[in-house]
Amino acid sequence: MELDRRRPGQSDIVTPRKEEDRVEILSGIFEGRTTGTPIAMLVRNSDQRPGAYDEMRDKFRPSHADYTYQAKFGIRDHRGGGRSSARETVGRVAAGAIAKKILALGGGASGAIPGGVEIRAFLTQVHDIIVPAGALSEFPSLADVEATAVRCPHRATSERMIERIRAVRSEGDSVGGVIECRVRGVPVGLGEPVFDRLEADLAKAMLSLPATKGFEIGSGFAGALMRGSEHNDVFVPGKDGQVHTATNRSGGTQGGISNGEEIVFRVAFKPTATILRPQTTVDSEGAATELIGRGRHDPCVVPRAVPIVEAMTAIVLLDHWMRQAAQNRTFSF
Amino acid sequence: MELDRRRPGQSDIVTPRKEEDRVEILSGIFEGRTTGTPIAMLVRNSDQRPGAYDEMRDKFRPSHADYTYQAKFGIRDHRGGGRSSARETVGRVAAGAIAKKILALGGGASGAIPGGVEIRAFLTQVHDIIVPAGALSEFPSLADVEATAVRCPHRATSERMIERIRAVRSEGDSVGGVIECRVRGVPVGLGEPVFDRLEADLAKAMLSLPATKGFEIGSGFAGALMRGSEHNDVFVPGKDGQVHTATNRSGGTQGGISNGEEIVFRVAFKPTATILRPQTTVDSEGAATELIGRGRHDPCVVPRAVPIVEAMTAIVLLDHWMRQAAQNRTFSF
Amino acid sequence: MELDRRRPGQSDIVTPRKEEDRVEILSGIFEGRTTGTPIAMLVRNSDQRPGAYDEMRDKFRPSHADYTYQAKFGIRDHRGGGRSSARETVGRVAAGAIAKKILALGGGASGAIPGGVEIRAFLTQVHDIIVPAGALSEFPSLADVEATAVRCPHRATSERMIERIRAVRSEGDSVGGVIECRVRGVPVGLGEPVFDRLEADLAKAMLSLPATKGFEIGSGFAGALMRGSEHNDVFVPGKDGQVHTATNRSGGTQGGISNGEEIVFRVAFKPTATILRPQTTVDSEGAATELIGRGRHDPCVVPRAVPIVEAMTAIVLLDHWMRQAAQNRTFSF
Amino acid sequence: MELDRRRPGQSDIVTPRKEEDRVEILSGIFEGRTTGTPIAMLVRNSDQRPGAYDEMRDKFRPSHADYTYQAKFGIRDHRGGGRSSARETVGRVAAGAIAKKILALGGGASGAIPGGVEIRAFLTQVHDIIVPAGALSEFPSLADVEATAVRCPHRATSERMIERIRAVRSEGDSVGGVIECRVRGVPVGLGEPVFDRLEADLAKAMLSLPATKGFEIGSGFAGALMRGSEHNDVFVPGKDGQVHTATNRSGGTQGGISNGEEIVFRVAFKPTATILRPQTTVDSEGAATELIGRGRHDPCVVPRAVPIVEAMTAIVLLDHWMRQAAQNRTFSF
Repeated sequence: MELDRRRPGQSDIVTPRKEEDRVEILSGIFEGRTTGTPIAMLVRNSDQRPGAYDEMRDKFRPSHADYTYQAKFGIRDHRGGGRSSARETVGRVAAGAIAKKILALGGGASGAIPGGVEIRAFLTQVHDIIVPAGALSEFPSLADVEATAVRCPHRATSERMIERIRAVRSEGDSVGGVIECRVRGVPVGLGEPVFDRLEADLAKAMLSLPATKGFEIGSGFAGALMRGSEHNDVFVPGKDGQVHTATNRSGGTQGGISNGEEIVFRVAFKPTATILRPQTTVDSEGAATELIGRGRHDPCVVPRAVPIVEAMTAIVLLDHWMRQAAQNRTFSF
Repeated sequence: MELDRRRPGQSDIVTPRKEEDRVEILSGIFEGRTTGTPIAMLVRNSDQRPGAYDEMRDKFRPSHADYTYQAKFGIRDHRGGGRSSARETVGRVAAGAIAKKILALGGGASGAIPGGVEIRAFLTQVHDIIVPAGALSEFPSLADVEATAVRCPHRATSERMIERIRAVRSEGDSVGGVIECRVRGVPVGLGEPVFDRLEADLAKAMLSLPATKGFEIGSGFAGALMRGSEHNDVFVPGKDGQVHTATNRSGGTQGGISNGEEIVFRVAFKPTATILRPQTTVDSEGAATELIGRGRHDPCVVPRAVPIVEAMTAIVLLDHWMRQAAQNRTFSF
Repeated sequence: MELDRRRPGQSDIVTPRKEEDRVEILSGIFEGRTTGTPIAMLVRNSDQRPGAYDEMRDKFRPSHADYTYQAKFGIRDHRGGGRSSARETVGRVAAGAIAKKILALGGGASGAIPGGVEIRAFLTQVHDIIVPAGALSEFPSLADVEATAVRCPHRATSERMIERIRAVRSEGDSVGGVIECRVRGVPVGLGEPVFDRLEADLAKAMLSLPATKGFEIGSGFAGALMRGSEHNDVFVPGKDGQVHTATNRSGGTQGGISNGEEIVFRVAFKPTATILRPQTTVDSEGAATELIGRGRHDPCVVPRAVPIVEAMTAIVLLDHWMRQAAQNRTFSF
Repeated sequence: MELDRRRPGQSDIVTPRKEEDRVEILSGIFEGRTTGTPIAMLVRNSDQRPGAYDEMRDKFRPSHADYTYQAKFGIRDHRGGGRSSARETVGRVAAGAIAKKILALGGGASGAIPGGVEIRAFLTQVHDIIVPAGALSEFPSLADVEATAVRCPHRATSERMIERIRAVRSEGDSVGGVIECRVRGVPVGLGEPVFDRLEADLAKAMLSLPATKGFEIGSGFAGALMRGSEHNDVFVPGKDGQVHTATNRSGGTQGGISNGEEIVFRVAFKPTATILRPQTTVDSEGAATELIGRGRHDPCVVPRAVPIVEAMTAIVLLDHWMRQAAQNRTFSF
């Protein structure tokens, strides 16, 4: 179940906070099938300990949303668990699970493979521990991703990542990382030419996640270091009768529209803002003060963000699939 | 005039294609003032040479949108100048010019500086020529940006960039680069907590531009290399009575909402796909063939993308300003 | 409480179905105040008797949504209480209650009266029992509306309406009616000139309610019977320094924009489709069959629709108020 | 051509103002076919005589948008031809002409007839001249509608309408009327169950037109005078294998969704606000004054509104068709 992949308390390297994340389906399902009407799902915040957050009532936690919420709304719920908490993402995972199911059905669209759309996210970096270039040339299996607590399918690297997270945790500190996401089975033609390019909506979806600082698709920032003659993906006739590209520096889209190749993008996550060390800050009166993080937080949220990245990817793809079905006489589910 | 900054033919390092880009204002202006009704502007494509594109009728240009358009729509206008051309961005610059004017007015919002919002984009990288770290600590002036044809305010670097572009052009090749954009004077409170985070909408806006491959805000991908204790922006009381942060690794937003610090982000551009060299490709029948780029294209589009990045930034900020005014009793223009 | 005005079982002339309609507020409220984040409210369907609807599994009820749902979605939840049930409107009333509170605050906008916006809906017709022309020239008080079970402030008429509903019920039949809604305290300037005219959005809101068949504003259909010289609302200087109209055939909007006069519109409701008489129909195999309505239904839903009409009015007005605040430098809450 | 049906100057009973309404297609068409990209069309306002409107600079015309525009925007273009002019509708007709073409193609959807969707609007009332009940039981042909200048397919009534318009014009006055619109060939399943009901979007579309005061579908306001047992449309097996209804008081939708029967609705138009008689009014300083209408205006705009009603109908239907194609695996164009 997708929600369990996001849930805290999965291993010793993530937050011990227990969120059961039990989903109650309120509507839209009848006798085991969707009815076409909206599916409402409810996940209640359990295991809240409001007392643990008392100090945050008057002090702004650095690199959290405390100050901006206060300034924007003139009021803020200082207890954890609100919309500025990553707990917000449980709804995304629940919705994404449904989107994934629909995408897995494939459909009659040109280029859609029989197995449907498959989305695989995984860690390629924790702090300065990075999967070696070229080590993951194949589409990683879900089993390989889920084999370790960090969700990095490159076993040797995953062990070093886990060590690093443990070391950082023992110092009351935190680290960030990078998630790569690949998608195969996407038909040619998803995405709009101008504002709603497929990569634009993927970028928005990823930057809408807590703690993200960057997005790149295909060659990404490294692409700026190449020449056009090196970077261009030349077209070749495919064995499947489709047009393909010899390389995939485009990352699966050209002109904002999927080209049938693997969609490949990466998302950068900053280190968790909550650390168990004293930090200077300002209180709600504007006076300098100090804050000591307590609570139960992740030294590294990135492994738990893997299903969230997949969920948002599924949602973006399904939205564009629906748009294309609306526009195009020959495109259907 | 903003449009002239985007226009081709500005210097010898960009495309010699002449686009006059004369704007005709069709509606929304009466006696020199906006009427509150939509402002329609029309820029006609002039200096088109359809004949120059005849070869593209049947061949897909590598890393262009030819193939994806054909697959998506079942038809395509093979001549340059359509929506898959960067000429599409002229509309963005025209709209952005109006957004900039409104933002420059500032407004009564808390944190808005008297001079209003100021947006400054500039190049920090062309190919592997990069502005040295820390060399641009101050907010660059428009004059410094516009001083050279590459729009890099670091003079020594700009000269090397120009050399590189000339060298690459002489080989019929192309290069990409990176644009940094900074914004000051943004009031605290712009952006929505979940899906429409300010950085999410900026990311979407940037990835909606032709040739972009990446977006990062604040610490960006490099932030993944830091620890939480290094990365956190501690709050300090400001001399202006506002809360400020001692560092700005957040890049001006926290929890998706502007915090009153400078907004700082970077956008990666791939090398121009059109090169004046023979490339293998596939024709509309799916057969392998060869294509020789002709036409008049930029060896490096990045300098001309500077006003486009600024325009999209202005549009995103103004949209969020309007949303905040709609939501918030004390926030107005 | 608004929900109690909509709830069944209020008197002997409405459905005896008991829906407690207890609202659970899931988010958006903290320590008695809204936090600016979305307010989620949950009302569970109680007192469902799924068995009572068994016959509808295979038979389409005339003038219900059974057939169209089946055709649209290929599946349908045949039990009552879904989105094709008027129970769906409980969410509208809950949201409208909040919109009403905000509108009642008034605001700094030109033309907003100190008491804020006041919305009053009431019955003017049940079957062929109609409030006499001119009998309700004043803005009816809430007390007068709520004084009788039919929510018609004209006492003599309300008694005849109640009699008629009782008579119709005893025959297992049903009747419809007309609701008039008046709004005072609306500032000048709400509404957009072209597609999103204020009356257009009101019309949509009203026709989105179950059982509605018509909408008219101001003079409405009767306006077609007048000449321009009779129909035009001439402007007169108001004692309050504002511009006013001598008559109000426009119904409070001109050119799609509120003009500061009372907004006055009427909504036609068809007779309840569920009747306790045998009716011929078709089953899901397309064969002719007969259906006998049972269940507990209203012989006339119109009195219970009064708070729903008010709720949708409040939602439309607040949306436009927010749009105007977003657009207009001098307009705020 | 649709635009010519809307154009002034078609006969002696409409405005003699000459608007050539020549459409320039700016984009989206290539070699005679649509490219899938947006179709931009430009119609310039010709035959403007700004001088004729000088008096309106300082005086508010009764029942026009002059005052509300001034109040909303703080500025207004007092010359005719802006968005408060019915000339705005030319864009709707141009867009509707394309929507009609697509709808006429029909499609593979269940219930779509081979001939595709056919939309026919026509006058049933001018002032108090009304087509006799039951006189138009058949779907009127386009030829019958276009046979007379008033676009009423009932010949005897149309002649009386024309007389009335001539009489009213000679007195410098104006009249309104009612348009009925019927649509056949609509597949079952268009429309959303709650807010975006098909009739709700039709109501909005119609009330977004200048001079409209009411909308009713099927039985409409008269439906409030019926009992449920009279009003219900019982289902019957159709000869075509589809489910049909014996009557059509629903007007083609049930539960907000098209049921495959004819869509039938009516729209009320007020008398033209511009009359050639002196009227009292207020000037921009708030002082009482008098205004004498001049200019060249229609004594009755309703005949020219027929193609506009059809255009908006086509746009709404096509939008819902696209939505349904996006949602539904088996529904396509």
